[in-house]
Amino acid sequence: MEERTEVTTLGEFGLIDYLTRNIEIQQASTIVGVGDDGAVIDHFGKQTVISTDLLVEGIHFDLAYVPLKHLGYKSVVVNLSDIYAMNAIPTQITMSLAFSNRFPVEALNEFYEGVYAACETYGVDLVGGDTSASLKGLLISVTAIGEVAPGQFVKRSTAQKGDILCVTGDLGAAFLGLTMLEREKKIYLESPGVQPDLENRTYILGRQLKPEARKDIIEFLADQGITPTSMMDVSDGLSSEILHICKQSNLGVVLYEEKIPIHQETKEVAMNFGLDPTAAALSGGEDYELLFTLKQDDYDKITLNENISPIGYMTENSEGAHILTKGGNKYKLVAQGWNAFEQ
Amino acid sequence: MEERTEVTTLGEFGLIDYLTRNIEIQQASTIVGVGDDGAVIDHFGKQTVISTDLLVEGIHFDLAYVPLKHLGYKSVVVNLSDIYAMNAIPTQITMSLAFSNRFPVEALNEFYEGVYAACETYGVDLVGGDTSASLKGLLISVTAIGEVAPGQFVKRSTAQKGDILCVTGDLGAAFLGLTMLEREKKIYLESPGVQPDLENRTYILGRQLKPEARKDIIEFLADQGITPTSMMDVSDGLSSEILHICKQSNLGVVLYEEKIPIHQETKEVAMNFGLDPTAAALSGGEDYELLFTLKQDDYDKITLNENISPIGYMTENSEGAHILTKGGNKYKLVAQGWNAFEQ
Repeated sequence: MEERTEVTTLGEFGLIDYLTRNIEIQQASTIVGVGDDGAVIDHFGKQTVISTDLLVEGIHFDLAYVPLKHLGYKSVVVNLSDIYAMNAIPTQITMSLAFSNRFPVEALNEFYEGVYAACETYGVDLVGGDTSASLKGLLISVTAIGEVAPGQFVKRSTAQKGDILCVTGDLGAAFLGLTMLEREKKIYLESPGVQPDLENRTYILGRQLKPEARKDIIEFLADQGITPTSMMDVSDGLSSEILHICKQSNLGVVLYEEKIPIHQETKEVAMNFGLDPTAAALSGGEDYELLFTLKQDDYDKITLNENISPIGYMTENSEGAHILTKGGNKYKLVAQGWNAFEQ
Repeated sequence: MEERTEVTTLGEFGLIDYLTRNIEIQQASTIVGVGDDGAVIDHFGKQTVISTDLLVEGIHFDLAYVPLKHLGYKSVVVNLSDIYAMNAIPTQITMSLAFSNRFPVEALNEFYEGVYAACETYGVDLVGGDTSASLKGLLISVTAIGEVAPGQFVKRSTAQKGDILCVTGDLGAAFLGLTMLEREKKIYLESPGVQPDLENRTYILGRQLKPEARKDIIEFLADQGITPTSMMDVSDGLSSEILHICKQSNLGVVLYEEKIPIHQETKEVAMNFGLDPTAAALSGGEDYELLFTLKQDDYDKITLNENISPIGYMTENSEGAHILTKGGNKYKLVAQGWNAFEQ
């Protein structure tokens, strides 16, 4: 039988002590960590970047198919992705959890194993947080702190006309991983005896369950001496994010469908589900790739990196935001893909 | 009829734009605020202090008697209190909300009015956050950032034997305010026609519904050149907090019951409820006063400030933590008041 220790046996302070018992500080900037009213961070003359995200059970995740350890890992990664998207290096996080009494200490421990694994992978320190009861389900609130040399942060609003639009990695996989997990959950609920058939789709499932943030790209750009003119991370689907950059930079865009990077497995699974892989990339979400614009002069330097794809270019605002399809059509880009009725 | 605008009519980004439309940046350190992947903060060589709190409907607050505007104000203040308790000055906050569809835009707007009022009172900037649906009720997650001159932060673990233990303001009032509100709710539920009888208890109700953080004390201590040897804020009741300082500083304490500051209205209402005012101060919670220890040499300077009460002194750890009652008895101090069975 699995162990089940009720949280009430530890109390709030006992629980925090238990979950944070193995913390090892990795960042020299962490002066005071968990265990006081606040943490103290010394950024040694750098600027501090801060970002925060909520993840709510039943809205953002479904514990029917998300292992708690993966959820802990992902909760951290999605926040670090925001810090990288500012061209900064994450250094600390705080993690707050509200949970109902259906979660025993063992479940929380599993969640924190994932949290600590992500902290180790990305070299960040967990420096604080809060725990509380919830009336229903699990709710996770993470705040990430990062640092950047003064003035080196990159916003969404500073793209220039003629800049090249680039995206990292590939898109649409996390959405198809989710689609597959949802299908298996549905089958399981209808016929509990049936084993899930995930068809060894390890790539797309991994992209959904254990995403990574693009630390490597931020390091590559720094090594190459490239500062993107604008940047953000891709969490809500490529279309929506491109439109954010357009709106905030007061520009238009031309996006080439054929340039959008999509993994072979994503294409295959999309076909099996009768979905258009491009639609999955444009509207799927949860990719946690970086979307950025570059001066044309920097183009040669990025061709060295196979994880960066140029996908379009920025235009005058008056030219609007469009996608050029493989079939040679030009459609207006909208937040949920494209609008075939308005060219 | 009251207006009711469904959140879905605005969408997530529209809602964020709407709720943050009047933000005015107050802190020179706020380089990038709301509207990007992260905020950017320049602490100009100071150290950054960070603290975070969750407030969950049904656990931490009851919307039956807490106006949303007060709740917004309080959500900010309780976090700022943690920053002051590190001897730091709060500069920025992030505010994340998860809410069910029973909350229209007007309700969120009212909540944010309180948030902005607190930001203005304390001179902090709202620089980010997240909004999400929830399966049930309202959940609030606030992270506060502050700054402190290098090495000037004050922890819980650094009290010394012989130090004077002090507390600010008065204690127990917020708990009695809550007790009164709970009573009126119960009467209302039993007899909906009966108007609440709050007996003009404005002091204790204000302490529960609209607490303030002790910015004034941190400024006073700085003006007097006093650095407490340890400090924390009083959120869970005086006993529990004193025991945190004892445990983390590896010391004992003697606390004088007669020195514990309690407001006249708190005493009166406690009597009416048949409660011991000292018990309310020791175990009530939500006072958001500061508890700190001072070197004996600094004692004369604090007598100038009527908002600071010396209430005891720190002893060797082996002497334990005790309260000397008005009746001349010595009891062991426990997290929920004192233990009359163990001297």
